[in-house]
Amino acid sequence: MAGTDTVTGLEVHDVRFPTSERLDGSDAMNPDPDYSVAYLVLHTSGGPPGHGLCFTIGRGNDVMAAAIRALAPYLLGRPVPATAADLAALHRDLTHDSQLRWLGPEKGVMHMAAGAAVNAAWDLAAARAGLPVWEFLAAMTPAELVSLVDFRYLSDALTPDEALALLRAAEPGRAERAARLRAEGYPAYTTSPGWLGYDDTTLVRLAKEAVADGFGQIKLKVGADLADDTRRMRLARDAVGPGVRIAVDANQRWDVAEAVRWMTALAPFTPHWIEEPTSPDDVLGHAAVRSGQPVKVATGEHVANRVVFKQLLQAGAVDFVQIDAARVAGVNENLAILLLAAKYGVPVCPHAGGVGLCELVQHLAMFDYVAVSGSRHDRVIEYVDHLHEHFTDPVVVEHGRYRAPAAPGFSARMKPESVSAHRFPDGPVWRARTRRRGQEVSA
Amino acid sequence: MAGTDTVTGLEVHDVRFPTSERLDGSDAMNPDPDYSVAYLVLHTSGGPPGHGLCFTIGRGNDVMAAAIRALAPYLLGRPVPATAADLAALHRDLTHDSQLRWLGPEKGVMHMAAGAAVNAAWDLAAARAGLPVWEFLAAMTPAELVSLVDFRYLSDALTPDEALALLRAAEPGRAERAARLRAEGYPAYTTSPGWLGYDDTTLVRLAKEAVADGFGQIKLKVGADLADDTRRMRLARDAVGPGVRIAVDANQRWDVAEAVRWMTALAPFTPHWIEEPTSPDDVLGHAAVRSGQPVKVATGEHVANRVVFKQLLQAGAVDFVQIDAARVAGVNENLAILLLAAKYGVPVCPHAGGVGLCELVQHLAMFDYVAVSGSRHDRVIEYVDHLHEHFTDPVVVEHGRYRAPAAPGFSARMKPESVSAHRFPDGPVWRARTRRRGQEVSA
Repeated sequence: MAGTDTVTGLEVHDVRFPTSERLDGSDAMNPDPDYSVAYLVLHTSGGPPGHGLCFTIGRGNDVMAAAIRALAPYLLGRPVPATAADLAALHRDLTHDSQLRWLGPEKGVMHMAAGAAVNAAWDLAAARAGLPVWEFLAAMTPAELVSLVDFRYLSDALTPDEALALLRAAEPGRAERAARLRAEGYPAYTTSPGWLGYDDTTLVRLAKEAVADGFGQIKLKVGADLADDTRRMRLARDAVGPGVRIAVDANQRWDVAEAVRWMTALAPFTPHWIEEPTSPDDVLGHAAVRSGQPVKVATGEHVANRVVFKQLLQAGAVDFVQIDAARVAGVNENLAILLLAAKYGVPVCPHAGGVGLCELVQHLAMFDYVAVSGSRHDRVIEYVDHLHEHFTDPVVVEHGRYRAPAAPGFSARMKPESVSAHRFPDGPVWRARTRRRGQEVSA
Repeated sequence: MAGTDTVTGLEVHDVRFPTSERLDGSDAMNPDPDYSVAYLVLHTSGGPPGHGLCFTIGRGNDVMAAAIRALAPYLLGRPVPATAADLAALHRDLTHDSQLRWLGPEKGVMHMAAGAAVNAAWDLAAARAGLPVWEFLAAMTPAELVSLVDFRYLSDALTPDEALALLRAAEPGRAERAARLRAEGYPAYTTSPGWLGYDDTTLVRLAKEAVADGFGQIKLKVGADLADDTRRMRLARDAVGPGVRIAVDANQRWDVAEAVRWMTALAPFTPHWIEEPTSPDDVLGHAAVRSGQPVKVATGEHVANRVVFKQLLQAGAVDFVQIDAARVAGVNENLAILLLAAKYGVPVCPHAGGVGLCELVQHLAMFDYVAVSGSRHDRVIEYVDHLHEHFTDPVVVEHGRYRAPAAPGFSARMKPESVSAHRFPDGPVWRARTRRRGQEVSA
């Protein structure tokens, strides 16, 4: 029919970058990641496509791609205007399908796949509206925002009425904060100096460069060896001076007692927070770590869903909530998490890095500032300076701040040539590696 | 090489049974399941293959199959004797692979896939030893059993030394309990009368039949409508009399306050437990439900891993731990959960039903009785009387009791003709349905 605008096709790619060749991204739990995305393009008949992604670190990215493809029946033929006008319906269809839900429920591969599809629909909707996602969200009324949230399992901590009251309280000043954001940007911190695979010289050089570039916070990976961490923490503190925050990140390496012991030892160097001290599922463990040593606790990049975030807040287990744009079921679930954090007065400091996570999550943090928490106090977005060149609307970070994105959509579109070059296993980058390895073996 | 016994191939099938045609298996969250398995056969060069499975309820079973296939690099070429002699190593390889771990961590699709592979290796190992898995486990020393467990994230609740002490305390009497098990079997309860899609007449008839068959406990699905549930609960109580236990199961339907309200209303009919009152991730929610109303609380079939079970026990959130044979990473992780439950003195009442879950989990409950808890008091294994005909060593339930399995292995082998008939979408059962639907459409 003329004039209709529907979803006509799913293009799903297994895209992997051979980052394990250098040690970018190395930490105590993930020694050799190949940063990857299961990348979704939702083609439509009436305009540009929508883009979404799941971030993984290599093996299993094909499973993520299969999970996204399994959502096709909910996407193909869907009218774009109705979908954009009721993004709660798509979110509900994907997360409430009883058969698919069995595979989680609401966690892991199927949940992240739902997130990629939901986010692709937000990209479509915001692009059709001619707005970046953060502005598209910030243009909604409190009632519209509340209608986007699935409150199932949340009502003991946050009701729709409470959410509405929070959003209404933040309504005055939205325009002023948006203007300030366009002028000043949003504070970032950088993890680039602190990968565990870097030697001391690299660590010190990059830490100094970070400060010179205007960052007020850096992050170090810790958790493999306490003597090493103590030395690296001392070197970093000496390099940046007392006025720059140094967060540390254990990437789930410890049990509770070990986390307490380790952070008690590192406390003299005044780490700003300890991130992922233990299992992301361990609400009570995080609470015990928080009360057992003096350093503030952060977690979230691997927290499976809003129900676990709810408990982390109920239990007083975290000082910082680290949302991730691609771990939960998309914008809708992250909106629930932003509201929970606002209810409990805990600042949100998004996890980013990986592939495209900075691009996506900046929209959520900026929307939080404009329309939910209303504050940038104690809030920073993680920044890692690699792989942005593969996106058509990469983040811009200057003087330690994210510039507010102006392009319509979710900044999730990858360059077609990057996708085709890094397709696994058949793209030229991977074919060349396979050939090279074959030569090494036969040599 | 002559004499070697290695894993030579993975056969992975997407097998689905059209159970949604009748309403077997229907509940408040899962109105129309097509009971399915992603079924794994590990072929070997030196003897019979190993068998493992992931249970799902239909859509997405192809994603599970893809996840099992993604484990091939860890399985192909693996020597069977070394694998059988160190089943902890395979478990660790599959759950500690940093790249695959990112897809959970330790939850959802990838974790269940690891469980299928681990369980297939246990099937291999026990079959090579000529023992059913429960006896194969019960023949191990306490130290051997402790070495099978991954204690990461558990040490604040259970240390290896504590586990060793628990197992040593249960060592005397192992032989006597095993003999009693062979003579008397293990108590079962039946869910067959209580599916939500059944009418009142069917419910009453099946409840009476269950009692006549010797069951001391039945289970009813609840959670869709309180008036209906009250009527059904009264009918069931009248049908079975005061001496038979009636458990109820909400399949995660409620928020905390709703669970408290609903169960307060059903309490006069003395339900034995309320199962899955809310999200399986909600440790604090379960604790609130347990303290807010008089009925005992059970959960576990959707609990993602040992870390969440640990917290349910630490928080005093459950009266019964319902392990599932195919939700976590196989026998090794279930052994951790059995030990945690024993430490906290909470009885384990396994979830079963589905496809093959009764076959698998009976081994774990019987091993628990012989060598861990040492008790059958307040313990029952769920039983559902369908789809057993597709297994070569189906469970035998007589007079309300599981007979101890005697065949070597894990009872997980499906009949080849059942697998080929129900392969999705190309098996004859599904081709016939597709054809029939085509005729309906064209008629």
